[in-house]
Amino acid sequence: MTIRSYDDVPVRPANLAGPAPEFPWPDGKRAAMMLSFDVDAETYATSKDPAHAERLVSMSYGTYEARVGMPKVLELLRELGLKATFFTTGWAADAHPATVEAAVKDGHEIAHHGYHHLLPDPGSAHIEDELAMGFDALKRRFGIRPIGYRAPYGESCDELRIALKREGIVYSSSWRDDVRPYRQVLPDGAPGVIEIPATASYDDWMHGMSTRFGPRSIFPKEHVLSMWKDELDEIRDWGAMVTTVLHPQVSGRPMRLRLLRNFLTYAIECRDVWIATGEQVARHFETCERADEGVAS
Amino acid sequence: MTIRSYDDVPVRPANLAGPAPEFPWPDGKRAAMMLSFDVDAETYATSKDPAHAERLVSMSYGTYEARVGMPKVLELLRELGLKATFFTTGWAADAHPATVEAAVKDGHEIAHHGYHHLLPDPGSAHIEDELAMGFDALKRRFGIRPIGYRAPYGESCDELRIALKREGIVYSSSWRDDVRPYRQVLPDGAPGVIEIPATASYDDWMHGMSTRFGPRSIFPKEHVLSMWKDELDEIRDWGAMVTTVLHPQVSGRPMRLRLLRNFLTYAIECRDVWIATGEQVARHFETCERADEGVAS
Amino acid sequence: MTIRSYDDVPVRPANLAGPAPEFPWPDGKRAAMMLSFDVDAETYATSKDPAHAERLVSMSYGTYEARVGMPKVLELLRELGLKATFFTTGWAADAHPATVEAAVKDGHEIAHHGYHHLLPDPGSAHIEDELAMGFDALKRRFGIRPIGYRAPYGESCDELRIALKREGIVYSSSWRDDVRPYRQVLPDGAPGVIEIPATASYDDWMHGMSTRFGPRSIFPKEHVLSMWKDELDEIRDWGAMVTTVLHPQVSGRPMRLRLLRNFLTYAIECRDVWIATGEQVARHFETCERADEGVAS
Amino acid sequence: MTIRSYDDVPVRPANLAGPAPEFPWPDGKRAAMMLSFDVDAETYATSKDPAHAERLVSMSYGTYEARVGMPKVLELLRELGLKATFFTTGWAADAHPATVEAAVKDGHEIAHHGYHHLLPDPGSAHIEDELAMGFDALKRRFGIRPIGYRAPYGESCDELRIALKREGIVYSSSWRDDVRPYRQVLPDGAPGVIEIPATASYDDWMHGMSTRFGPRSIFPKEHVLSMWKDELDEIRDWGAMVTTVLHPQVSGRPMRLRLLRNFLTYAIECRDVWIATGEQVARHFETCERADEGVAS
Repeated sequence: MTIRSYDDVPVRPANLAGPAPEFPWPDGKRAAMMLSFDVDAETYATSKDPAHAERLVSMSYGTYEARVGMPKVLELLRELGLKATFFTTGWAADAHPATVEAAVKDGHEIAHHGYHHLLPDPGSAHIEDELAMGFDALKRRFGIRPIGYRAPYGESCDELRIALKREGIVYSSSWRDDVRPYRQVLPDGAPGVIEIPATASYDDWMHGMSTRFGPRSIFPKEHVLSMWKDELDEIRDWGAMVTTVLHPQVSGRPMRLRLLRNFLTYAIECRDVWIATGEQVARHFETCERADEGVAS
Repeated sequence: MTIRSYDDVPVRPANLAGPAPEFPWPDGKRAAMMLSFDVDAETYATSKDPAHAERLVSMSYGTYEARVGMPKVLELLRELGLKATFFTTGWAADAHPATVEAAVKDGHEIAHHGYHHLLPDPGSAHIEDELAMGFDALKRRFGIRPIGYRAPYGESCDELRIALKREGIVYSSSWRDDVRPYRQVLPDGAPGVIEIPATASYDDWMHGMSTRFGPRSIFPKEHVLSMWKDELDEIRDWGAMVTTVLHPQVSGRPMRLRLLRNFLTYAIECRDVWIATGEQVARHFETCERADEGVAS
Repeated sequence: MTIRSYDDVPVRPANLAGPAPEFPWPDGKRAAMMLSFDVDAETYATSKDPAHAERLVSMSYGTYEARVGMPKVLELLRELGLKATFFTTGWAADAHPATVEAAVKDGHEIAHHGYHHLLPDPGSAHIEDELAMGFDALKRRFGIRPIGYRAPYGESCDELRIALKREGIVYSSSWRDDVRPYRQVLPDGAPGVIEIPATASYDDWMHGMSTRFGPRSIFPKEHVLSMWKDELDEIRDWGAMVTTVLHPQVSGRPMRLRLLRNFLTYAIECRDVWIATGEQVARHFETCERADEGVAS
Repeated sequence: MTIRSYDDVPVRPANLAGPAPEFPWPDGKRAAMMLSFDVDAETYATSKDPAHAERLVSMSYGTYEARVGMPKVLELLRELGLKATFFTTGWAADAHPATVEAAVKDGHEIAHHGYHHLLPDPGSAHIEDELAMGFDALKRRFGIRPIGYRAPYGESCDELRIALKREGIVYSSSWRDDVRPYRQVLPDGAPGVIEIPATASYDDWMHGMSTRFGPRSIFPKEHVLSMWKDELDEIRDWGAMVTTVLHPQVSGRPMRLRLLRNFLTYAIECRDVWIATGEQVARHFETCERADEGVAS
């Protein structure tokens, strides 16, 4: 790794994009929620160290996803009549094809989430490989060329977002810096993909999972519902959006599914929240953007 | 340790077993709870570093188990008329024989939990020794050849589960990947022992213990009861099972025992939950499995 | 770093100042609250490692401040009719000038918070540079020579507080050792700047933010409001003061803003709490101090 | 450090003492609470690294104790009419003599808590020095030869407890392995000092303090009161005792004092709890022990 000094820290916003446009939501909705899940499967462990592959109980937290978590999450979405985006690692597609296939059959969106869920740290040798292998697995297994991407470990870098644009990705859902979608601006000033920022407080891993490799505290329904409702209610007042970062290996656990059912029921009953997939949000953004450019030109 | 690369990560589920069979529970019960405790005693500390043996206050958290925690837990189980499985380290059997003997006399199941509670990391030199010394201690002290096993630190590897089968263990309760028992499949495709998966949220160490070597947050009754009831209630709706991973050195502390009494009373009052030992769950599984094979053949 | 032994630990209070004077608050108020925010922007990450500048999602937590957090906090303060102190890093002033300018226009106080938010560890080569560059950025961008200072990472040392005095800083708000302002005493016994101690429990980062580099637990409204009200209520009984250490990148998040709105509304409705900027508190202290010296002489 | 293997782990309880005797409490009380505080002052930081002495804000958390925490705790105890034991580091006695003197004047017990609060790790060179310097400071400053001792960082070893006996200490309050006092048994089988075990859940540091060097979560009144009442209520049912491990630099903070006032008021209102100093508990134990020996002989 190159040693960097403070002379190397550029004095400009980390994000060069202008303010997010305040486009209206469809059908007169007041706010939006992009409903999405990350399908990491066992890569939650192997992505930290490939040797974890032989630590069978640590791996089993990830295996829960295919055996129980995904079927239960899909069942819940059917009950509630909701469609979601599943950011799926290539490894999960290859190792658990039937599980992911079930999401495809239910009409959910499958999007790109790397292959081995490797952290896209700036300068990492694996960035292009992870991208190519992820595309390949989704194509090979399900004939799908995804238009959405979420960075493993919620991290990104210039090399990666330039590659996303080049590969025809339409939207990314990784950044944490806004409450509305916006178009990324690449280092050379060219427009990048649409960014649909993720909402950290809807990352179920923060509140509901503890393992030998990540001994977080686990919080009950009352605790998490209070935060999830507050976040949504304030966003409704702002006319903005939230983006969930749920994981079937967390929210597919019994008490977590109960909590998620409760929260999604609340969101539906608000009636003013557009609950949509990443693709729907991105296509709506494109439409508004084109209309806006039409007006502007 | 061998350096491993991502080429070494196999592209298949970490668990080769098929879906867990949905056998009915006995007596028309709707769901099941395997009630079990891990008797680590002072190995909770020495298993991390043998030098802890001379750090007397750190050791004293473990000693609490024999002096107060076990007697209080046994008293509670007598009051509630419940039988449980005690996964007991060989060291605890040798250092605190009277404490474990009291559990035997009360009719509880004694099962294998290693000798020094050493982590069965893949390739560890101590895996076979831990197994042999644990069997020896239980036989020598109580004349018991256990049929159940729980992995120290909730970790396992192929070498260990092959050894469990060879040694005549009937069931393991270590994996975290299901809500029903299933039969393990060994790397060569042969059937392994029955797995009765553990439920991480019922690990009292996660919510109720903080020491100099593990500074977790401690949560009150309201917090833990909400989670424990939610987990059980959802499992009742699924017709599945939970498996507790309690520790007399945690749940035998005054405020934790109060909480456990409250939770177990709730579980009993549900009336549709079969509260059983690991042995009872495993024998029931065997019976259903044989019946199933009879039908299938 | 020099190796230090216990012979080097001086046997005297770390703070040589006498007891904080119990000056009355203005307008017959019973207690006071210094309302202040730290504007770190992306330096929250780069101050730990300049290489974070290329980790774009990690950076984006800081960028949220300029894009959403600051505008929302300023809007809230306008709604409630409150003025606050914004301790602003020079980097934030240079990279997000319009954001900080908006605070200036609303009549809030801008104070010094370093340039790159570098930890002022004793003996650090950057202590004087951070100070000079911070002054320069605020002067160059907004024509402001700040009179208040808060130490990055809430740390300080003798070299720094001597420099603050030399540079004409009137007050610091960094120490955690009192519930009333007092005048610092420098190592040579000379009077230093006024210290308005910060209240750790009003640091929103402790309760409401979790990132890849700081995986804290996040707590809901009920949890934080209970603590914030208790702290204020007890301080009202003491006739003392609290000092908030809020961050627009935390309290500007939707659910955190809702919480802050709730808390500030409560503080206003108490009617006996003087909610003031650091400058107001410091000037009031100077007036009381002079009056006191007049009486004493 | 000597490398130790599992052959070195002795196969016997870490604590050789027999079961704690179930002596009755005085005046027909049902249970007991030893009310005690640890007066660490700035050694909370320097004991980890002497270089912290120059990190002035980190030090200031400790200085809060002398400036505000101790006066406020003493005021509360006067209001409630309670006497407590203050385990005081020699450094605090030397650096803040007036603060400790105030506790002496109010009739509280002053006991030994090391000099620099250095961890008594087995084999540490400083064990005897810490003991001698602590005795010296309390004698020199207040003319006190303490009879009670609590180990810094709640750790101990054989060398230390042999030294305590030799130095005429009557009781220690460090172990975590019982709910009643008992007499320590030294490695050679000789009787040691009386142990009044500490109750970890009454360590306010676990729930109420977060600093740059110890980023724990902080919990509100409802959370901690629930635990503290549950622990006491269960102990009342057991007829046993609890021992607080409070710190004026934590419980002397405004919201923590409010919580402590609430809890102590509850304990007083129970009317069946004997709230006593360590000395009172130890002398009562000695009396019962002698009576018991009289009966036995």
